[in-house]
Amino acid sequence: MQNFIFCNPTRIYFGRGQITRIAEEIAPATRVLMTYGGGSIHRNGVYDQVRAALGHAKLSEFGGIEPNPRFETLARAIEQARAEQVDFLLAVGGGSVIDGTKFIAAALYFKGNAWDLVARKAPLERALPLGAVLTLPATGSEMNPGGVITRASTREKLPFRSPLLYPRFAVLDPTTTFTVPPRQIANGIVDAFTHVLEQYLTYPAEAPLQERFAEGILHTLIEIGPKTLAEPRDYDARAALMWAATLALNGLIGAGVPQDWSTHMIGHEITALYGLDHARTLAIVLPANLHRRRDAKHAKLVQYARRVWRLDDKDEEKLVTGAIARTRAFFESLGVPTRLTDYGIDPEAIPELVTRLERHGMICLGEHNDVTPETSREILMDAI
Amino acid sequence: MQNFIFCNPTRIYFGRGQITRIAEEIAPATRVLMTYGGGSIHRNGVYDQVRAALGHAKLSEFGGIEPNPRFETLARAIEQARAEQVDFLLAVGGGSVIDGTKFIAAALYFKGNAWDLVARKAPLERALPLGAVLTLPATGSEMNPGGVITRASTREKLPFRSPLLYPRFAVLDPTTTFTVPPRQIANGIVDAFTHVLEQYLTYPAEAPLQERFAEGILHTLIEIGPKTLAEPRDYDARAALMWAATLALNGLIGAGVPQDWSTHMIGHEITALYGLDHARTLAIVLPANLHRRRDAKHAKLVQYARRVWRLDDKDEEKLVTGAIARTRAFFESLGVPTRLTDYGIDPEAIPELVTRLERHGMICLGEHNDVTPETSREILMDAI
Repeated sequence: MQNFIFCNPTRIYFGRGQITRIAEEIAPATRVLMTYGGGSIHRNGVYDQVRAALGHAKLSEFGGIEPNPRFETLARAIEQARAEQVDFLLAVGGGSVIDGTKFIAAALYFKGNAWDLVARKAPLERALPLGAVLTLPATGSEMNPGGVITRASTREKLPFRSPLLYPRFAVLDPTTTFTVPPRQIANGIVDAFTHVLEQYLTYPAEAPLQERFAEGILHTLIEIGPKTLAEPRDYDARAALMWAATLALNGLIGAGVPQDWSTHMIGHEITALYGLDHARTLAIVLPANLHRRRDAKHAKLVQYARRVWRLDDKDEEKLVTGAIARTRAFFESLGVPTRLTDYGIDPEAIPELVTRLERHGMICLGEHNDVTPETSREILMDAI
Repeated sequence: MQNFIFCNPTRIYFGRGQITRIAEEIAPATRVLMTYGGGSIHRNGVYDQVRAALGHAKLSEFGGIEPNPRFETLARAIEQARAEQVDFLLAVGGGSVIDGTKFIAAALYFKGNAWDLVARKAPLERALPLGAVLTLPATGSEMNPGGVITRASTREKLPFRSPLLYPRFAVLDPTTTFTVPPRQIANGIVDAFTHVLEQYLTYPAEAPLQERFAEGILHTLIEIGPKTLAEPRDYDARAALMWAATLALNGLIGAGVPQDWSTHMIGHEITALYGLDHARTLAIVLPANLHRRRDAKHAKLVQYARRVWRLDDKDEEKLVTGAIARTRAFFESLGVPTRLTDYGIDPEAIPELVTRLERHGMICLGEHNDVTPETSREILMDAI
């Protein structure tokens, strides 16, 4: 096991009716800016629940944070937060709203060009506190200190993180997800599944418990994924999905083990250029990535085949091939296509994607730092 | 899944050489009282490492906290801490030292008789901050807000807890455990295993991920338990044991699920009266408890048999019997006997144990609150 530091201070309120708890977390007379996305929270009642819970606070709001939240949009929110001298940010929505709100929290006190927080990983010294009411299980942003934002003008999508950006609290009420469109639930399952594989499918590192936990999340997603798509109002399946997606990326299963994340970095370029849903880029890149790097990942792919997919074969190469095929089939079974061409992206697009990876410094990705632009090109070619 | 609140603020420093990190956690000139047990930290070098790391602080010490830490001993530590006006407590040792130090932290500002903190569960309004350097993987106290202390004069052993008692940080360096006697390592494995079963072997609660995590800890303990006993200086096995024992009782696997804890409460009375190691009381009570309540726990025992022990039988009763037998055999294989009579305790002792459970209000234990004194008596009779 590698040395690690683990600390996750986010307080989770999980279950039915827990939105009322935010009243305990936000002191009276706090100036709160509530951030949200396209307005689904108006239709599903979450907006009203939050308003009711925060009757004691001074509440203003900023709506319209889009999927793959845009720097340009967030810049307006930052202006508003400054003008209103808000004390606290409350993100109400999915990972995009929470990521965007983290960026607002980070940029508010940042001297200089806020884009440097992502482009140059400028260190953060202070951030506005934030909380989250999660309405879409997927990214894990509700219990981690990172985010990803997109600059529309240059078509760039880049990650940022700081220990100052853990939400103080996150409310996870599975009933808020009942009316989420199936496409987004499927995306969420693929996203969480890929988060686990980025931390699990690397090389053996004598971390048996982290592996068991990772496998536990994968088993859970495989079991309840199809069920929760078929029965959106099955509380227990939604609850299991919601908690699984949170624990897939809250630092726990990644503590003390090598991590990959090349699938994410390649996928971000596809979203930035073509606007594909984040999870769909993962579904495209991941199987190709595993195929291309199957030798370096051999031992863990064999373990994944046996323990997660329950494959049984003396020929380990067949196990590896089978596990990758099962992964692809799982994504497809959720209604998420896994080929670039399924989304109308031709091989001609690949050079520009690779050029952008290089421009963003993504030139030695993966657990061995050996995913060069050439490897990324090969992966994308395999993903056609 | 049941509603839950989860927040664990303890910062974990895990791995070789991490004791130096305490310098980052404790500000210069802080008046630190370092607490420890019987002095093994003098022999294994941990004492010197802590002293070296805390060169910038004002360090005093209190040694001699015994296994099953005694109220009477801790009262002297509290006096010393008051006299020295210490700002911070640093527990260096195993669960007993950490539990005892939590009690010091709690009692220091408590008005009235400190024993009321355990006997009457008097609420805590303030506590001294504490940190931990763990040298014995077992109780999980390093990352949770609870403890258990013993009043020698009345032979009472009772638990207490408060959110104010989470250690601010805990250092988990597996090399500090290399010289721990095998008996204590075996005890630690049994303790952690039983902590998991108290949270897992109840009734189905639609919490598939918590179940997978619990099973993951059990698998890990079964795999590395015998190995780490045989090879005490195998770093990776000790590391896996250490992290598994911490996660067995840090709130994670118990979030959103029913919990039992009757084995612990019955076991505490045995320790209080006869001085048996805590883990050995669990090894005695647990198999008998599972046997006696096998019908109420049927569904989870079957799952435990299949998933953890990989038993296969169409007859579910055989699965249950097999799983209980495997549990007992696992404890015995670690050198931990599982019968009262193995420790020279006769059936004549049982009425007094039951009387003491009643006196301590332990009259409706378990996940269904149906473990009455009569049930406890039956369990103890089965444990002869």
